[in-house]
Amino acid sequence: MKTPAIFYHAGCPVCVEAERQIADALDPARYEVEHVHLGEQSGRIAAAEAAGVKSVPALVIGGAAFHINFGAPMSALKG
Amino acid sequence: MKTPAIFYHAGCPVCVEAERQIADALDPARYEVEHVHLGEQSGRIAAAEAAGVKSVPALVIGGAAFHINFGAPMSALKG
Repeated sequence: MKTPAIFYHAGCPVCVEAERQIADALDPARYEVEHVHLGEQSGRIAAAEAAGVKSVPALVIGGAAFHINFGAPMSALKG
Repeated sequence: MKTPAIFYHAGCPVCVEAERQIADALDPARYEVEHVHLGEQSGRIAAAEAAGVKSVPALVIGGAAFHINFGAPMSALKG
């Protein structure tokens, strides 16, 4: 069974680069990567924060949050 | 030809987790990942900084530096 990984982003330039170079670089044989745009899917912000996400872009794998560089804080994504 | 990727770390707990969950998760069919412990290989600090690395753990892929969470600043690795 593949390990689920969630890439949280907000469409920012830093997010796009992290998506292209890190999220899309994960081994597709081992990881099932879901891409979530928190600016468009605000209903998923709570789950992201519960997983430890404090800024985007971030990748949640195996229950741990990995912030990749810094695009925007979660507070900027909340209406 | 595989894309070279360099994972810079310093053996810290944050580094070890990033190594296990991100660096080791890259697709081995597309990426050739080299692991560099900057605490033990200080001669490689200059090249890491030139690539844009400001803290460890960090992954340099395609000429861009991606800082993954925060373990230690580069200044802490210089004797």
